[in-house]
Amino acid sequence: MEMEHIVEAARGIFGDRLSLNASIRETHAHGEANPATHLPDAVAFPESTEEVSRLLALCHAHRMTVTPFGAGTSLEGHVTPVAGGISLDLTRMNRVLAVNDADLDARVEAGVTRKQLNLFLRDHGLFFPVDPGADCTIGGMCATRASGTNAVRYGTIRENVLGLRAVLADGTIVDTGGRVRKSATGYDLTRLLIGSEGTLGVITEIQFRLYGIPEAIGAAVCRFATERGAVETVIEIMQAGIPVARIEFADAAQMAASIAYSKLDGMAAQPTLLFEFHGTAQGVAEQAAMAEAIAAEHGGSGFAFATETEARTKLWQARHDAYWAARAAYPGHGAFSTDTIVPISRLAEAIEQARDSVAQSGLHACIVGHVGDGNFHVLILYPDTKEGAERAWALDREIVAQALDLGGAASGEHGVGIGKREFLLREHGASALEMMRVIKAALDPRGILNPGKLFLD
Amino acid sequence: MEMEHIVEAARGIFGDRLSLNASIRETHAHGEANPATHLPDAVAFPESTEEVSRLLALCHAHRMTVTPFGAGTSLEGHVTPVAGGISLDLTRMNRVLAVNDADLDARVEAGVTRKQLNLFLRDHGLFFPVDPGADCTIGGMCATRASGTNAVRYGTIRENVLGLRAVLADGTIVDTGGRVRKSATGYDLTRLLIGSEGTLGVITEIQFRLYGIPEAIGAAVCRFATERGAVETVIEIMQAGIPVARIEFADAAQMAASIAYSKLDGMAAQPTLLFEFHGTAQGVAEQAAMAEAIAAEHGGSGFAFATETEARTKLWQARHDAYWAARAAYPGHGAFSTDTIVPISRLAEAIEQARDSVAQSGLHACIVGHVGDGNFHVLILYPDTKEGAERAWALDREIVAQALDLGGAASGEHGVGIGKREFLLREHGASALEMMRVIKAALDPRGILNPGKLFLD
Repeated sequence: MEMEHIVEAARGIFGDRLSLNASIRETHAHGEANPATHLPDAVAFPESTEEVSRLLALCHAHRMTVTPFGAGTSLEGHVTPVAGGISLDLTRMNRVLAVNDADLDARVEAGVTRKQLNLFLRDHGLFFPVDPGADCTIGGMCATRASGTNAVRYGTIRENVLGLRAVLADGTIVDTGGRVRKSATGYDLTRLLIGSEGTLGVITEIQFRLYGIPEAIGAAVCRFATERGAVETVIEIMQAGIPVARIEFADAAQMAASIAYSKLDGMAAQPTLLFEFHGTAQGVAEQAAMAEAIAAEHGGSGFAFATETEARTKLWQARHDAYWAARAAYPGHGAFSTDTIVPISRLAEAIEQARDSVAQSGLHACIVGHVGDGNFHVLILYPDTKEGAERAWALDREIVAQALDLGGAASGEHGVGIGKREFLLREHGASALEMMRVIKAALDPRGILNPGKLFLD
Repeated sequence: MEMEHIVEAARGIFGDRLSLNASIRETHAHGEANPATHLPDAVAFPESTEEVSRLLALCHAHRMTVTPFGAGTSLEGHVTPVAGGISLDLTRMNRVLAVNDADLDARVEAGVTRKQLNLFLRDHGLFFPVDPGADCTIGGMCATRASGTNAVRYGTIRENVLGLRAVLADGTIVDTGGRVRKSATGYDLTRLLIGSEGTLGVITEIQFRLYGIPEAIGAAVCRFATERGAVETVIEIMQAGIPVARIEFADAAQMAASIAYSKLDGMAAQPTLLFEFHGTAQGVAEQAAMAEAIAAEHGGSGFAFATETEARTKLWQARHDAYWAARAAYPGHGAFSTDTIVPISRLAEAIEQARDSVAQSGLHACIVGHVGDGNFHVLILYPDTKEGAERAWALDREIVAQALDLGGAASGEHGVGIGKREFLLREHGASALEMMRVIKAALDPRGILNPGKLFLD
């Protein structure tokens, strides 16, 4: 069947919600950061799982490729339809389907964004802790196995999803998991789909855990003479079992940029840890006191603890604005973020190696990290030219290789997409990669789902 | 090739560690509780992953079935070699390979048992929280997706495993996951193997998370006028975000049995909650005070809090001895445990329905549960005859069906094995079950790994 006939059949499903418009196709040709771009032949905007199912059955029958698209905030090229075909935009599937206060769980369609969700939950006194920087969709977060600053206490999206509805390559609708907190029956299809980046199925609904908004929340900042002192503080805090909700690192360059951009009075351009504590008023104060004592043993000083909402909000807004602060500090530069993770015992070493590589590259960089997990980002600032971008990508690859040599992973939370494919063999080995390929071939034998991602071919 | 020739080839791998001895074959013919029994043709005792690999390559070539065997404590028939073939006993692979204090992780061979592990860890000030009642192997816990009393705070085995080494059906050795806390690269093969009950691969090594032994541990007991009062207390404690380490329920019949068996002075034969709190001394006291206040609102009384090791140990020993207490209360009876889980909002209803079914069956029962997760066990006491056992199994099926009707799962922690196969379709639906079969067929096309488990026919 010719492309035009497939489009005609798809129009029978979607009507005006199937678009061939040039500017709509252009906005679906790429995500953020990764330079890969390719126009889809058409963009479909389903409003139900059934419509996704009908489209996939059609595309499966005619070997037409399908690339799921959410908020378009992917950093590794996940949403680029490298083989053309249909871009499947799930943003119209944005209903919150259920919130269960007694069970602390909820069910949403895949296009709901995390900010939309937390706004909706506020009246329930509940929150969803997984918080990537971008206002991405919950479906996209599942597909890329996302996390964020709260993962050290609440886990990543992997630990918080209870079940999924997804559409397989041939249009089959599958429900995985359920509403229960744990189950010992059958293969863990939920976890198989999480992180599969749209290559095994299109996630359309998500059932997940919620948490009560803590009675008390405290934030703290502490600066260090050395990066190693900051990292050793983190290790000791984790060993002591202090249930920090967030423990974030920023290096001196990032602090200088953030102090200027976010007007952070009283802070210094030194390696810094940012904390958040959740619990009772008494518990939060106690956690902070313990963290302060451990920090002091490792050269930490100026430990500033705040429970007022305004002070906390300003601090975490500054953390979330780290990217913009860095860009403001280096006007005219391009910027992108590496995303590696190592065992926490190797974190100081990994950051030192990354810093050496940055120095050798002649580029600028700021380093931030979700250090309780061993996950850190080198924000590379490069001259905004083709040659500058190439130097930046080469530096990224070097930093990934260093993390792998230290027993780490090529991505802590951004995913593989196009950008990290070359590292999958090295990280997982030939046997595991072949096992992934066998699963992919069994579940999508015609290779229509998000081709060109995860696997080099 | 004839069986005798395969055995001869296997002897080339294992020497004397391949046994045809009748009594050894008999101890590998079944686990606990589930009545299915079948003699393996031979029992192999590997001492390395390489030996497992060589055996599986041999068995794959000759379509000989292989059934993994750990401590033999499975309750659902997982270890019964229903098609004969080789029973693969992993208990000689019982080395602790690494403990990393800075990273709070460890690596063991699959045959290490949880008590052996925690004994080993004590000198490090660390512990492994996943605690099924039996002293099972870590490999068996992974295979059945086990949990226990600490899951409400620390998660099940699923949340605590970082990576696995496993041997696939054709002998391929695969390493999944790694040492990092999280990763966003590639399919989650670790979670696919966890809970696969030996049908996708034989797990030989496990990398997993550890926790520091808390600074303070407190235990508490509280009795209730009604079961509903106890369950509502649990719901409210979870909503309040009190980080209880354990919250266990025992009904009046179980309490009567345990008071007599474990000499629990000062307790009453009423619905009871048992708590454990982990944290600082101050934090533990605060958690207990909050739990007591919530319990009081739901008819809880006699809240008794203890931090002394002796009192705590006695209480939790009594909880672990619940099975033996019940058996002592009903001499001459057989006993086995159901294992269902429901959303916590349906827990009171589920327990009431189960109690009605017990009454109608004319059998006796005690009910205990990991109620923070919605997981509960009806310990059925039945006249120790074939007819009595059949009535007990019929009651078990009825209770499972009730849990499924309430949006629950057929097993919270014991697994499917042979005993729960009939419920898989109803719990997961035809599409998900077919997806599982496709994965099984792709990874074990000759069906040699643990046949007759998980799937009917």
